[in-house]
Amino acid sequence: MSPTAQLHPDRLLPGDPGTRGIARDLYASVKGLPIISPHGHVPPEWLAKDTPFTDPTSLLLSPDHYIFRMLHAAGVPLAELGVGGAELDEAGARRAWEHLCRHWDLFLGTPVRYWLEDELVGIFGVTEPLSEQTAQSSYDRIAEVIAGEDFRPRALMDRFGISVLATTDDPCDDLSHHAALAADDSFGPRVMPTFRPDKYLEPGRSDFADLVARLGEVSGEDTASYAGYVRALENRRRYFVEHGAVSSDHSHADVVTLTLEESEASRIYTAALAGTATQEESTALRRHMLVEMARMATEDGLVMTLHPGSFRNHHQPTLDAHGPDSGHDIPIQVEFTRGLRELLGRFGTADGFQLVLFTLDETVFSREIAPLAGFYPSVFAGAPWWFLDAPEAIGRYRSAVTDTIGFYRTSGFIDDTRAFCSIPARHDMSRRLDSAFLARLVADHRLREEDAHRIATDLVTRVPSTAFKL
Amino acid sequence: MSPTAQLHPDRLLPGDPGTRGIARDLYASVKGLPIISPHGHVPPEWLAKDTPFTDPTSLLLSPDHYIFRMLHAAGVPLAELGVGGAELDEAGARRAWEHLCRHWDLFLGTPVRYWLEDELVGIFGVTEPLSEQTAQSSYDRIAEVIAGEDFRPRALMDRFGISVLATTDDPCDDLSHHAALAADDSFGPRVMPTFRPDKYLEPGRSDFADLVARLGEVSGEDTASYAGYVRALENRRRYFVEHGAVSSDHSHADVVTLTLEESEASRIYTAALAGTATQEESTALRRHMLVEMARMATEDGLVMTLHPGSFRNHHQPTLDAHGPDSGHDIPIQVEFTRGLRELLGRFGTADGFQLVLFTLDETVFSREIAPLAGFYPSVFAGAPWWFLDAPEAIGRYRSAVTDTIGFYRTSGFIDDTRAFCSIPARHDMSRRLDSAFLARLVADHRLREEDAHRIATDLVTRVPSTAFKL
Amino acid sequence: MSPTAQLHPDRLLPGDPGTRGIARDLYASVKGLPIISPHGHVPPEWLAKDTPFTDPTSLLLSPDHYIFRMLHAAGVPLAELGVGGAELDEAGARRAWEHLCRHWDLFLGTPVRYWLEDELVGIFGVTEPLSEQTAQSSYDRIAEVIAGEDFRPRALMDRFGISVLATTDDPCDDLSHHAALAADDSFGPRVMPTFRPDKYLEPGRSDFADLVARLGEVSGEDTASYAGYVRALENRRRYFVEHGAVSSDHSHADVVTLTLEESEASRIYTAALAGTATQEESTALRRHMLVEMARMATEDGLVMTLHPGSFRNHHQPTLDAHGPDSGHDIPIQVEFTRGLRELLGRFGTADGFQLVLFTLDETVFSREIAPLAGFYPSVFAGAPWWFLDAPEAIGRYRSAVTDTIGFYRTSGFIDDTRAFCSIPARHDMSRRLDSAFLARLVADHRLREEDAHRIATDLVTRVPSTAFKL
Repeated sequence: MSPTAQLHPDRLLPGDPGTRGIARDLYASVKGLPIISPHGHVPPEWLAKDTPFTDPTSLLLSPDHYIFRMLHAAGVPLAELGVGGAELDEAGARRAWEHLCRHWDLFLGTPVRYWLEDELVGIFGVTEPLSEQTAQSSYDRIAEVIAGEDFRPRALMDRFGISVLATTDDPCDDLSHHAALAADDSFGPRVMPTFRPDKYLEPGRSDFADLVARLGEVSGEDTASYAGYVRALENRRRYFVEHGAVSSDHSHADVVTLTLEESEASRIYTAALAGTATQEESTALRRHMLVEMARMATEDGLVMTLHPGSFRNHHQPTLDAHGPDSGHDIPIQVEFTRGLRELLGRFGTADGFQLVLFTLDETVFSREIAPLAGFYPSVFAGAPWWFLDAPEAIGRYRSAVTDTIGFYRTSGFIDDTRAFCSIPARHDMSRRLDSAFLARLVADHRLREEDAHRIATDLVTRVPSTAFKL
Repeated sequence: MSPTAQLHPDRLLPGDPGTRGIARDLYASVKGLPIISPHGHVPPEWLAKDTPFTDPTSLLLSPDHYIFRMLHAAGVPLAELGVGGAELDEAGARRAWEHLCRHWDLFLGTPVRYWLEDELVGIFGVTEPLSEQTAQSSYDRIAEVIAGEDFRPRALMDRFGISVLATTDDPCDDLSHHAALAADDSFGPRVMPTFRPDKYLEPGRSDFADLVARLGEVSGEDTASYAGYVRALENRRRYFVEHGAVSSDHSHADVVTLTLEESEASRIYTAALAGTATQEESTALRRHMLVEMARMATEDGLVMTLHPGSFRNHHQPTLDAHGPDSGHDIPIQVEFTRGLRELLGRFGTADGFQLVLFTLDETVFSREIAPLAGFYPSVFAGAPWWFLDAPEAIGRYRSAVTDTIGFYRTSGFIDDTRAFCSIPARHDMSRRLDSAFLARLVADHRLREEDAHRIATDLVTRVPSTAFKL
Repeated sequence: MSPTAQLHPDRLLPGDPGTRGIARDLYASVKGLPIISPHGHVPPEWLAKDTPFTDPTSLLLSPDHYIFRMLHAAGVPLAELGVGGAELDEAGARRAWEHLCRHWDLFLGTPVRYWLEDELVGIFGVTEPLSEQTAQSSYDRIAEVIAGEDFRPRALMDRFGISVLATTDDPCDDLSHHAALAADDSFGPRVMPTFRPDKYLEPGRSDFADLVARLGEVSGEDTASYAGYVRALENRRRYFVEHGAVSSDHSHADVVTLTLEESEASRIYTAALAGTATQEESTALRRHMLVEMARMATEDGLVMTLHPGSFRNHHQPTLDAHGPDSGHDIPIQVEFTRGLRELLGRFGTADGFQLVLFTLDETVFSREIAPLAGFYPSVFAGAPWWFLDAPEAIGRYRSAVTDTIGFYRTSGFIDDTRAFCSIPARHDMSRRLDSAFLARLVADHRLREEDAHRIATDLVTRVPSTAFKL
């Protein structure tokens, strides 16, 4: 009887028996509710084409930077893990899987191991712990499961109980996969695009002129002028709204906002196209455009989500060899209070405007995000994100924000994952941890048990539906 | 039998039964001790005139930014809550109360709900939970209690067990209410003014010339010159000391300190009066004046309290419509180590000088405040303040500072509240949480139970008396 | 029966009985393992000469800034505590000890008291709590123990079970004590020097020219030129390696790194020797030299440890009177992500390069250090340091880093102490706290008990051996 085979029913619930009993009841009432995933990175093509997955490594390892970055830290070359577009053949995929198995101890105590064990046992029936010895047998077992008809993406959506899933999409995307899904009456879940315009809002990029030229093509607007550029963005946002989008997502180095005079914005835009804008000017225009995004949101209704504070591509040699998203985005400090003042001064109380704030810098939870969400009707405290979407950090998040804003000014859980099969494990983890937190408040007599039950349910239904206008 | 009616006797004590038993004993030994409130915002006029309260809304809701800011976040216009001077008639007051009742779920899990339920049950006998259905009956019940003779401010001081209460006062205030209270032998508690000179130390304010002119009038000093300005401040501090003040309170955007040459200070002061000082000069003079306050403190003995790190009036449209203190002061980062070096270099070891450091940025608890208070005889770690005076944050505070400075270099609890009726609930919460923290140390065998008892008592007696020279 | 006499066997283990049982088993399996201390400040001369200790104060109080800084905060003059070179006679040593005893309550709840009680009971058999009444008797008792042959440094090394001990040494030190120890077959433990070049890397120091002149002398290189200066450093590092060093230690105001052109480095170096380098230039050269240290590490194999974020000598009058290390180094914010980019871009994946990151600013644990250690094979998350090497902070550290990097990208415990007798108490504390943390993960079903046992052992064996190449 292998120990990994046992996914303990009380995992992540509090150790104290009295509190655990309360948490158990709370969790029982929410564990089976449908999954709402309003922000993530599942390719819509998978669902539109119901593409079969090919092998364990390309399904579970190569796309998951949580996993491959730690293997890199252990000395495994990224190329051997299929990162950055390098296609692995069968032998390569097996070798990559062996690397993971050999270094499985590295992940002890981490959510990565917790999620993957949840998947291995719950989805794939791999009941032996990963190790050098079990590398081939576990690979075989997963490969066998993957090959089944019932392991196609659409079947998994159903099996995982995902009722709402947002993808992340380029503004120039034609959203044909989303259109196909919407037109398909046999497909039940709601799959929505998300407008992600970052690179089109960075006038300092060397490819900015090409990017906005392309934006002009797909929108039919003349992006040679600033006014046309703004119209093109408005056009594409509307296109996304028409294809079911409910939010736009933004991630820049900071969240400083400012408003330029129209003429100044226009002047910098023209200079940026000519490649003559200074870095300061480009940054100013980007900050101005973030306010423009808020302005457009008040018109087209898209919820705005901000994900700042990641220093992208920290290790230049790895970027050169493997491209972006190869595991070396590292968090930095962020500042919201001063940075967002211009944006919130203009739209913070505007009808229908909604702004969800995420962070990799947990110092702002209690200091900035919760206080902002406790005054501005538009602001919601986004769930713990990325490096922080893990048991200890989620506990710190609830501890940090609840004092100031309770539960109803938060966004609900966001998985933001590229690892499709981890979605149920991640949402389940969140439900367990929220049950544990609520149970502690009940045990402390800060909350009545019936209120805790209502909150637990709301956190996976009403709360994300409100924050994301579902 | 309504559930809110039950204020559980063990609320906020730890869930683990063994630790809870220790905490219960600790709490039992301090729950009845008199309340020392060395910093807060109760209007002295209430006590001097023993003014009856008029209605539930103006007593409990309109002055309490903790409450009305969350209602604003829920979409309720501030004007409908009586914020910013707008007087509400009886119908308006009832409507405001209804807003609170309708949105009562927003506050689940927050200290605001905890305090108000404590008040509703313990003071007003409102035993049904607030809701749209109970809005009128709860309003009526509170209004009835308020109307009683035994609900006048002085009776409440007695009932609440408040032995020491500091108010916060303008340097030009004549302190007549304090004088009246001091002269009244029938009034037992000690009510002290606090010297709060912020705006008189901000040469960059557009009304600076008017402010110091007024300072000149009340002090009899000629504030046309810098030397006269300094004498005027010294004069008013002495006036406060003569009227019982024990501390001065300071809140600016940062706590950077520096010393200007007398001639340079004088030059900037004159320029500020003429409206020609640059922003840099004004800031420099303000930073210099904070050191001057410390210098004066070494002469007149006032304890200096610093409350930095709030970005005041974040939302300009709300400021325009409702004035300051309308719920949108938002915390920012602060820095103490470098900022206070000049002040502490000059007065950090000066006889009798005492400096209590508060913060809205909890990152400085372990990094800066505790280390400073663990070396400088003058420095005390101020209690968790404002957004941080809540169960989770208070736990983090004790966790952050105790490793470095134990309990005797802290200030004791500060309620800093405008909500008079919440004072006992707030101090009771603090006593419960300190009992819980101490019980954990006892259960861990880090502290002997007898020592924990001594500390629990000291934290509400000797510790604030020492920090505030009572 | 005195209460202090009881060092409770379960101290620091969790209060919940179920979790405590798990923690007890974990602790039992590691409590007796040898101590590896890869970074600290024990004078090698003590061991080489096996010098007898003279008195309780000079052994336990005067060298321990954790203790004397709190006594200073309580108003005791440093001169009366033997700080800063002031030799105390017998009467003075007794008076200093009395100060400690009189203020013993100040330390309630702090690790300083915990460690010292551990030493008093466990090493000295002082079974009465310290107090004014027991000051003389406890002093006498300790003095008696100290006088014994079995209390010589070498005997203590053996008694404490220290198998590896690193000292901290000046690059110009001849390491004769280390050589003597290495040559002495009767001495079992491994005692290693650590290369600590800080002051030789600060071109802005007024004594920089003298320092590098001395470096030239001992290395036989001509440090009049930048090239010679670099060779001299390489030479001394090799000398340290030959004498058993495994690491170099670095502590500057920040960890910003950059690479200067050779010619520019040379130009600034020459200017610095002439005293004409600007502060910006000096800082640039220091930041460049930190990268040079990394470059040399890839050649000579020394592990690089970074200890930034302390504002040294905060109180100028105390510095003037008592010299450095007199208790007023105060933490400041640090930044690693951007700062280390140049260094890690060049050497982050270099063969054999290892970099251990420490901090006094705990906000970087989850935000920067763990994410860096989870990608770069070279980076290890250093243990909680100095103000943070205490029960609450150690708990926060494990909570902050484990989600991202588990246990095997950390450094293991570092005592970094000048208080020789506290070494076993500190390591024992760390083992108890790690057992408590692991037990919590087991109780939560995040970790299997057998895995927790393996981790607990690894944390005091394989983990520090890996991080420090032992």
